[in-house]
Amino acid sequence: MLLYERFRDLVRTETPVALATVIDGPNVGAKLMVVREGTTETVEGSLGNPDLDRVAARDVAGELEAGRTGVRHYGPEGQATPEDLVDTPTVSVFIETFAPPPQMWIFGAVDFTAALGRVAKVLGYRVTVCDAREIFATKRRFPMADEVIVSWPAPMFERRGHTLGPRDAVCILTHDPKFDVPAIQGALATTVGYIGVMGSRKTHNKRLERLAEVGVSGARDLERIMSPIGLDLGGRTPEETAVAICAEIIARRTGHGATSLKNTSGSIHS
Amino acid sequence: MLLYERFRDLVRTETPVALATVIDGPNVGAKLMVVREGTTETVEGSLGNPDLDRVAARDVAGELEAGRTGVRHYGPEGQATPEDLVDTPTVSVFIETFAPPPQMWIFGAVDFTAALGRVAKVLGYRVTVCDAREIFATKRRFPMADEVIVSWPAPMFERRGHTLGPRDAVCILTHDPKFDVPAIQGALATTVGYIGVMGSRKTHNKRLERLAEVGVSGARDLERIMSPIGLDLGGRTPEETAVAICAEIIARRTGHGATSLKNTSGSIHS
Repeated sequence: MLLYERFRDLVRTETPVALATVIDGPNVGAKLMVVREGTTETVEGSLGNPDLDRVAARDVAGELEAGRTGVRHYGPEGQATPEDLVDTPTVSVFIETFAPPPQMWIFGAVDFTAALGRVAKVLGYRVTVCDAREIFATKRRFPMADEVIVSWPAPMFERRGHTLGPRDAVCILTHDPKFDVPAIQGALATTVGYIGVMGSRKTHNKRLERLAEVGVSGARDLERIMSPIGLDLGGRTPEETAVAICAEIIARRTGHGATSLKNTSGSIHS
Repeated sequence: MLLYERFRDLVRTETPVALATVIDGPNVGAKLMVVREGTTETVEGSLGNPDLDRVAARDVAGELEAGRTGVRHYGPEGQATPEDLVDTPTVSVFIETFAPPPQMWIFGAVDFTAALGRVAKVLGYRVTVCDAREIFATKRRFPMADEVIVSWPAPMFERRGHTLGPRDAVCILTHDPKFDVPAIQGALATTVGYIGVMGSRKTHNKRLERLAEVGVSGARDLERIMSPIGLDLGGRTPEETAVAICAEIIARRTGHGATSLKNTSGSIHS
């Protein structure tokens, strides 16, 4: 009851919150809640076992960050998969997120856009594709997108830039200074968490010159622009590039180094 | 005609080959072919422009590696996207791959399996899910999988391990030594390009002891085992973990370092 009132107040104030409820196993109905206020995450309630709570809270926080809802399965003490192959009781937990999904805006209706949109959808993003060219920016070419918008970047940011925040991403794949310079300017004016821009190193250097001409030259702005976009995976296809971009978005949000876990030390989920 | 005969012989000998044909733009019908014999790639034919050939050959090789077929668009001299937003002629190239798609075998019908399967499908893998537990290893739980097989690892590798090669991946998500030790042994006996094993560092260290007990302790074998699996992206959801795994598979195949391209130098597609 206390949890309900707390939950009601959080939803009223539009504070992102995720509720986990045991739907099968011991303690059916037990609830745990993860609340994110600014950059602070707090855990309230219990699923009935402290080890299960610890593991589940981590997963619930992950779902909250991704703005997703689903069912997860654990061993009675939070084992990711029961150690025994058969006859092990499992705990099924329904995780429900009360927060808008993160947004990804992709500028440029190019070959890479569809692949990036598909991987972004797996990650739970609300995907918006934006291009000024009416014949390319069509829902038919990008069926995975939640929205396809025919627009230049500036009006798009004027209208909706205020809805972007730290969980969101802007990916600029246009290769065209007429389009990508105003898109970068628009993105920098928001608090969006990730700004990536596609292009060779030569294109990148030319772009820096053009950005300087329009007054974008501060170290803090340039630090935010991930260009060339993506991790250096050496991939060649649009799909491999999409994985390289999404991997960079995740690593940049968490501040992790993106080397192989095999070659690092310490806890994986620190 | 010469190209046809060469192509016919390659298909006869089951040599992976990708054909690129101009289907719109100048030189409709012009063909370029990328052939992979062992680790050597050769480019034959031309699309009618040396710069276009260079860019397209790179993309065709990427499609060949992924075993995929599709249409790509270029500027007349191979520009990834025409510099001008309107009225620029483009060259449409149909790329057709004649090689089986790469395989991903996922051991363990767990929560992470479905997410990994979805990202792997975007990358063009033929996905096989394998688990000994009949109630978990179902097509219904893994609709994205091309095959769901109820089996212990050893018989699976005995029957089909010889079909795995350098383009393929084995991902072991079971967390169970009864299952993952024989899966690792089976994978090491093949020429599969990637072997990743999920688990905390503690699980990993215990697993190393068990592997030593069954005779797996050589540096060369241990070097092949990517464990804990994936790049260190700091992600928490199954989907983020799937991106971390696929990113590691790509980087390991190409030998690239997986840091942000922003923080490296040199050509992106070297």
